[in-house]
Amino acid sequence: MATSIDSANTKAVERMVEARPVLTGMGKALDLIPGMHENLLLHAGPPIAWEQASGPLRGALIGALIFEGRAGDEEEAERLIVSGEVSLAPCHHHSSVGPMAGVVSPSMAVYEIENRTHGNRAYSNLNEGYGKVLRYGAYSEEVQERLRWMHEVMAPVLGAAIESCSGVDIRALLAEALHMGDEGHNRNKAGSVLYTKQLAPHIAKAAPDAATAADVIEALGDNALSVLNPVMAACKAMADAGSEVEHSTIVTTMARNGTEFGIRVSGLGGRWFTSPCPQPVGLYFPGFSAEDGNPDIGDSTITETAGLGAFAMAAAPAIVTFVSGTPQDALNATLEMYEITAAEHSSFTIPQLDFRGTPVGIDLRAVVETGITPRVNTGIAHREAGVGQIGAGLVRPPLALFTEALVSFAEEYGFQ
Amino acid sequence: MATSIDSANTKAVERMVEARPVLTGMGKALDLIPGMHENLLLHAGPPIAWEQASGPLRGALIGALIFEGRAGDEEEAERLIVSGEVSLAPCHHHSSVGPMAGVVSPSMAVYEIENRTHGNRAYSNLNEGYGKVLRYGAYSEEVQERLRWMHEVMAPVLGAAIESCSGVDIRALLAEALHMGDEGHNRNKAGSVLYTKQLAPHIAKAAPDAATAADVIEALGDNALSVLNPVMAACKAMADAGSEVEHSTIVTTMARNGTEFGIRVSGLGGRWFTSPCPQPVGLYFPGFSAEDGNPDIGDSTITETAGLGAFAMAAAPAIVTFVSGTPQDALNATLEMYEITAAEHSSFTIPQLDFRGTPVGIDLRAVVETGITPRVNTGIAHREAGVGQIGAGLVRPPLALFTEALVSFAEEYGFQ
Repeated sequence: MATSIDSANTKAVERMVEARPVLTGMGKALDLIPGMHENLLLHAGPPIAWEQASGPLRGALIGALIFEGRAGDEEEAERLIVSGEVSLAPCHHHSSVGPMAGVVSPSMAVYEIENRTHGNRAYSNLNEGYGKVLRYGAYSEEVQERLRWMHEVMAPVLGAAIESCSGVDIRALLAEALHMGDEGHNRNKAGSVLYTKQLAPHIAKAAPDAATAADVIEALGDNALSVLNPVMAACKAMADAGSEVEHSTIVTTMARNGTEFGIRVSGLGGRWFTSPCPQPVGLYFPGFSAEDGNPDIGDSTITETAGLGAFAMAAAPAIVTFVSGTPQDALNATLEMYEITAAEHSSFTIPQLDFRGTPVGIDLRAVVETGITPRVNTGIAHREAGVGQIGAGLVRPPLALFTEALVSFAEEYGFQ
Repeated sequence: MATSIDSANTKAVERMVEARPVLTGMGKALDLIPGMHENLLLHAGPPIAWEQASGPLRGALIGALIFEGRAGDEEEAERLIVSGEVSLAPCHHHSSVGPMAGVVSPSMAVYEIENRTHGNRAYSNLNEGYGKVLRYGAYSEEVQERLRWMHEVMAPVLGAAIESCSGVDIRALLAEALHMGDEGHNRNKAGSVLYTKQLAPHIAKAAPDAATAADVIEALGDNALSVLNPVMAACKAMADAGSEVEHSTIVTTMARNGTEFGIRVSGLGGRWFTSPCPQPVGLYFPGFSAEDGNPDIGDSTITETAGLGAFAMAAAPAIVTFVSGTPQDALNATLEMYEITAAEHSSFTIPQLDFRGTPVGIDLRAVVETGITPRVNTGIAHREAGVGQIGAGLVRPPLALFTEALVSFAEEYGFQ
């Protein structure tokens, strides 16, 4: 049995590593995302009902329905969802991922990623920047105005620019960004300027006028997370390439909806294993403390699933000022993750470790055997809708999730 | 005596570190550079005559006279210089610096840097990118065409963009770039994309049309050395702030003209100490070897003088693939430079060394006492004019230079 698991894992991880995700364009969620319909809202993490949703997720769902023109206020939005008129589904069930609340509604613009090696596609929404933003559950008029500008002005220009430069090779961009101090999850500073640099000439030509070109370039360039969403979709495309490999114990999804942390395993198809979300440990912005923090939320753990984020911490020593710790802790974080992964990435390398590949492909068995759970870098949302980010730090999914998944794996494949 | 030297050195280094160089604009060398005139060409390194000039420097001088419309060919250019009709002077004598041959002619566009702390200014030319370029001594029609485009199309747009964004704080940009894997000399990849990112929205608005905006943004963004020249001028402004401090043994200039390596010392005014240039040791591009290499050339050693470049190697582990060595060697390079410097930089910090400041302010006494000469990262030029860059590596000025300067210092200040 171990042999067939090993070879299945090799296959799953090879597919993840060989995937070449290219950002090919941008369009309306309704037109691009498989299974999207007029009465569906996507969200981060495993499936959840309104009743169990945390503050930031509820806020983002309300905000999305206001953005769609379906609801005028909170009550109307809640009624639409509770009545079942509008249904909820995980982004992950629709080849998509979204940071924090991760809410995608039918008329939102989404990035399209194509895995040029295996042909599968993945999607993510636009990054709104910092402050009061939908993904942290804010939905005031200020947030709506920003969303309208992004969709009416920015998205068409950005979409045309992406097409004009024949796509952006996100795997190559990430490989370069790791040599420039990014880890690809909390720190996407280099990636975002590389992204802006590549698109800016095309934006200059695609924009209806110079002022719009300047505004769009500035919005991308001044947001150190502007590339996070395409990066997440790229990681989703890579992880999906490694999913549904029979006999494989490789984790292909880690995601949080703000209430539960969920994982999925390659050899166990679409089945979620969930557990209450832990609280991140880290640094809080002035005036906030752990009491204000929401349990962990977002699909951005797809970066760790694909061998980035906390797994690539050694490449990003400067991040420690943001998430706490020392550069040595950053090295140790990556070194620890080699203990629970099946391979070293051939495209993502870490100069600080003599260009060793990042640890990739979390093996369920290794997690349970060693008791070492995956590390995740994360932003911390306020527990109330609309406040926004109040810190950043580290979180680990509960070990019980992996134990439970391994028991199910043993049952599924008839051994124990 | 030691006490007065120590306090003079503290003053000199404090002035270097406290200098805040801001890129404020761009204009014609003739209009901006102090002492520039119609019959003057500036060049890298200490003073030199045509007869002693190496291939790349000769090529760049010829190319500049062709660019100026003063000469039609090599012979005519040589005659102008040898006859004394056109004279040569070091960039350093005119508040300027230039990479490699470093040739600046009267009608060339130059960046202007203002040190907002002490008020002094410094200048550098535009970076042409890679391949056949004037700074490596190439002067063919292809090179001239590129220079004309840069001066007629790019420079006016760039100048307007710099003014429109109220200047670019180069010290802040460098501080950020060091946290993104740059060392500020051979590796200015992050700095160049940060620079492009900051200017791109202003270029979009300043350009006469969208196609020109796109071309200028692309020229900046695709050249990983586009920010090198403003960075060098910024380092010159910082080093100049620390110069001419009586009793100070701090080195305020290191520069090479392709024949001689020269240094100047704060307490010894404008006096050059020179010695034949050593050959860099490093990696050669395919098809080239040490035999093809020119002796070391360029004013870019101003970066090491100001606490960057090889002194900041620890921040740039990815550079080792370019100059040879391992990431551990990069750490060791910086650690060694603390042995010969008077301070640690308060703005330039190295995440990999727990955010320790870069070693800054080379103390002549420490170099002579320890026998440790400054490390310099450098590009390697072909010894013949016009071939271009053939490698990159490390060089160290001869110890004798520092011994000679220390002897002169002792004579000057009447002790020994």
